[in-house]
Amino acid sequence: MYNHRIKHPSLLDKIITAPQAAAYIQNNTVVGSSGFTQSGDSKAVLPALAERAATDPLQITLITGASLGHGTDGLLANAHVLKRRLPFQVDPTLRKDINKGEVLFIDQHLSETAEQLKSGHFPEMDIAILEAAMIEDDGSIIPTTSVGNSAAFAQLANKIIIELNMSVHPNVKGIHDIFFTGNFPNHRIIPITRPDMRIGYHSIPVDPDKVIGIVITNEKDSPADIAPPDTCTTAIAGHLLQFFDDEIKKGRLTRSLLPLQCGIGKVANAVLSGLLDSDYENLTMYSEVLQDSTFDLIDAGKMRYASGSSITVSEAYYEKIFNNIDHYKQHMVLRPQDISNAAEVIRRLGVIAVNTALECDIYGNVNSTHVSGTHMMNGIGGSGDFARNAYLSIFVTSSTAKHNDVSCIVPMVSHVDHSEHDVDVIITENGLADLRNLAPRERARLMIEHCTHGDYKEELMDYFKQACKAGGQTPHLLHKAFSWHTRFKNTGSMKSDVLQPEIY
Amino acid sequence: MYNHRIKHPSLLDKIITAPQAAAYIQNNTVVGSSGFTQSGDSKAVLPALAERAATDPLQITLITGASLGHGTDGLLANAHVLKRRLPFQVDPTLRKDINKGEVLFIDQHLSETAEQLKSGHFPEMDIAILEAAMIEDDGSIIPTTSVGNSAAFAQLANKIIIELNMSVHPNVKGIHDIFFTGNFPNHRIIPITRPDMRIGYHSIPVDPDKVIGIVITNEKDSPADIAPPDTCTTAIAGHLLQFFDDEIKKGRLTRSLLPLQCGIGKVANAVLSGLLDSDYENLTMYSEVLQDSTFDLIDAGKMRYASGSSITVSEAYYEKIFNNIDHYKQHMVLRPQDISNAAEVIRRLGVIAVNTALECDIYGNVNSTHVSGTHMMNGIGGSGDFARNAYLSIFVTSSTAKHNDVSCIVPMVSHVDHSEHDVDVIITENGLADLRNLAPRERARLMIEHCTHGDYKEELMDYFKQACKAGGQTPHLLHKAFSWHTRFKNTGSMKSDVLQPEIY
Ligand SMILES: CC(C)(COP(=O)(O)OP(=O)(O)OC[C@H]1O[C@@H](n2cnc3c(N)ncnc32)[C@H](O)[C@@H]1OP(=O)(O)O)[C@@H](O)C(=O)NCCC(=O)NCCS
Ligand SMILES: CC(C)(COP(=O)(O)OP(=O)(O)OC[C@H]1O[C@@H](n2cnc3c(N)ncnc32)[C@H](O)[C@@H]1OP(=O)(O)O)[C@@H](O)C(=O)NCCC(=O)NCCS
Repeated sequence: MYNHRIKHPSLLDKIITAPQAAAYIQNNTVVGSSGFTQSGDSKAVLPALAERAATDPLQITLITGASLGHGTDGLLANAHVLKRRLPFQVDPTLRKDINKGEVLFIDQHLSETAEQLKSGHFPEMDIAILEAAMIEDDGSIIPTTSVGNSAAFAQLANKIIIELNMSVHPNVKGIHDIFFTGNFPNHRIIPITRPDMRIGYHSIPVDPDKVIGIVITNEKDSPADIAPPDTCTTAIAGHLLQFFDDEIKKGRLTRSLLPLQCGIGKVANAVLSGLLDSDYENLTMYSEVLQDSTFDLIDAGKMRYASGSSITVSEAYYEKIFNNIDHYKQHMVLRPQDISNAAEVIRRLGVIAVNTALECDIYGNVNSTHVSGTHMMNGIGGSGDFARNAYLSIFVTSSTAKHNDVSCIVPMVSHVDHSEHDVDVIITENGLADLRNLAPRERARLMIEHCTHGDYKEELMDYFKQACKAGGQTPHLLHKAFSWHTRFKNTGSMKSDVLQPEIY
Repeated sequence: MYNHRIKHPSLLDKIITAPQAAAYIQNNTVVGSSGFTQSGDSKAVLPALAERAATDPLQITLITGASLGHGTDGLLANAHVLKRRLPFQVDPTLRKDINKGEVLFIDQHLSETAEQLKSGHFPEMDIAILEAAMIEDDGSIIPTTSVGNSAAFAQLANKIIIELNMSVHPNVKGIHDIFFTGNFPNHRIIPITRPDMRIGYHSIPVDPDKVIGIVITNEKDSPADIAPPDTCTTAIAGHLLQFFDDEIKKGRLTRSLLPLQCGIGKVANAVLSGLLDSDYENLTMYSEVLQDSTFDLIDAGKMRYASGSSITVSEAYYEKIFNNIDHYKQHMVLRPQDISNAAEVIRRLGVIAVNTALECDIYGNVNSTHVSGTHMMNGIGGSGDFARNAYLSIFVTSSTAKHNDVSCIVPMVSHVDHSEHDVDVIITENGLADLRNLAPRERARLMIEHCTHGDYKEELMDYFKQACKAGGQTPHLLHKAFSWHTRFKNTGSMKSDVLQPEIY
């Protein structure tokens, strides 16, 4: 049944079970696993490892592309298997352990993990677990729904376990483009000059002698679960589309825009959906994740080509795409994440990047990761790779969270992921602040007037005015800069009347 | 006398005086000027503009490569000529006006200014003032001691004023390498794969019809004034050289290291001087500024090639270099700053970047610009371009400032220029913290133990431990995060015994 998917003869007798594979992993092993935004992840070996740890405790370093599906990070965290975890996660259970300091989490720009492994900044990788749809006669593997860091892991790991996933049709071959930049001082140019350019191989080279086992699986990716557009996300998308229109009128953009990158989530989805109903044409994406709305745009003939590192879609879209994969192959490609997120390519193509903020401050600094400055949400992911190098770096957020008790526009962000230099435009449902070509004091006025929720506008303007009296390029009152955050902690709301009910 | 330097015949009759040139500049004019780290700046027209403004007030936007020499920024600030200034400055008078909010300063990654002008994110440039050593028969100009943004300004400005500087020998021709990346969506690859690679022209193309005047000057650059190594900078350099040795022993670097970038200043100077006395060979630089110590290394046969955007040296070195320019030409090149600082090239070459911090925090975030979080020192300059994209990003600072009353290692930096993701190693005279592959809590212990001054260690460890109790990926106590800064403001010292003398 799986024989025709293992074309390299010597590998045919390496089939093992998931528990057998998991047994290769020892205490302190450094493990690399395929998986990017829930797609193409390990479905058998990592869960088997979690199970084994219940009776045979061990701790590992786990490095992935990005987040895993199927609650695998949670299973591993519950079983106390994770000593060190990088570069990204989205799991509620793991998140708790990270914030307790029980799992050492290294939050990384997603373009950099492979580079740093290659350079020896990290310890050697002992074992890589790589999901594949097929093994070619030369031992190379056809990945499934993501590439992530798998190509680098295959090169760098001492041993390799392949999860051959029978649920992914072998005709997935051809959607990947595998390229290696090589080592310093002979690092290669990444010769991509258009999103649709192919520069590498269809499969990931694997040394068959490093393969210690092949585990047969038959489970699909966890489906994406994307909330439909609501009033807030629709308003944000509306402001952004209006902004695009204005840029087109000013002659700075055309109706094809420039290659788009959209973070995953409901706002990104609303933005891409908004593009469906307008007269854009020949759109392209140079992004990380291809989601439902990407395929809607392709189907509508509005998007010519989409480049990413994973396909993360709902169940219905998954069926549609893989039943018509030969059609979609002409419109998309999946790349290693050090290529999809390469500074070089993002700058060269002039990507328009749309990412989500947890909070922004009046000067345009953005916090995407740390709730209240301390507690990790997911990680910086690729947002920094794109925001720094984009032609236009746009951040979106609703103006408040927690039923209005938190203002997402604050005097000073409690953690900085993206500094004012890397943020061109900020959008909330209230409006858009175009921060280009502005000094901090000018930025602040726009952020307060256009983006801040009515409940917080006045106090924010007060803060800014008082701070200006104390002076500076970037006026602040350090003793009050986090007063909204501490107020929220102490009273459950950032609003000042909650703090001092006695004065009302 | 200057005729042989103006080879394009129609330009010969465009000679004007500096005041005549300055008269072209109107209120609200957007002016671009050559000049990078005091080198190759406007020596006549901008000072004449300042003089004129005394009787004829006007305000302009002034865009340069980086800092100007001869106190020109101060003259302009005193004359209230500067409405908007970007992307960098180092002038004490201008700094005061910026911090009072009287000059709108836009602090930028130095690689990005040209890109943003080209993309139309800034208003059109009306007039460019470009220092040149010679005008070629096609109208193109040979720049002098820096390239900076001059090539972009020459392309983008509506009108051009040339300052033909007779003090710079025409044999400077050949040290520049002028390359244009083009416009989106047809942005070109920057094909540099080694620091010594030349990819462009010797001169900057100029449309002779845009030239509205040529001003003859004869003044040299302001000389660099670099403090000699002292105990502190020597100790920092010692730690860094030890670190390089260790990396070489581990096989991660060779005795040629990888291309170096060094910020300007006394620490950088001490580091480069340290390399002189060790057994390195075939060193290269891919940096912004070539300074005295660069040429010492070339003279000693230890540095094979240095790529930068300006030569900023002391008077003695200036004479030596330009009296032997044909020799040095084989060992150096000056590039436009969007090439010297290009993310693409810095990543590809694997640059080792050494920059200076004002303050660092226990998690490895760095503030390079804002004293007490509010008051601009100079600007981020190229530090972000290099720190983000380097193979190794190193920040150096003395452990204290202001006679020990300020700790340069603090609980939380009061402004973030470089986040933990972009900082691999931090060095003070006390020691070195190698932060690679570490989670924030691990970073904190190293920063406190290795880098912090003895007077502040204990309280910093207390802060960290208390913060850990409150939890989080990056533990902080927001109500205390800036307590050292506010204490310094209130008492003149960050030390706690000064705050509360009564308890002693
Ligand atoms: C920033 C990010 C967490 C936002 O995700 P999202 O799902 O759009 O955001 P939501 O509005 O649902 O907020 C998520 C949670 O944070 C809370 N939150 C939002 N803003 C907050 C704030 N300023 N303070 C405290 N909590 C806040 C929300 O209430 C919600 O909490 P809940 O889970 O308890 O309901 C997410 O985009 C991310 O992880 N970004 C970093 C990685 C990245 O950008 N990758 C780019 C390419 S994929
Ligand atoms: C950060 C930077 C200002 C340090 O410059 P430097 O000359 O090495 O630093 P010094 O130690 O002399 O400090 C400069 C001043 O800041 C003060 N200072 C230093 N650390 C401080 C701190 N933590 N808090 C308050 N003041 C501080 C010093 O006391 C000194 O003040 P003074 O001018 O009144 O004497 C400088 O490197 C810079 O501008 N960097 C940003 C640009 C850059 O990195 N470019 C890269 C390539 S060129």
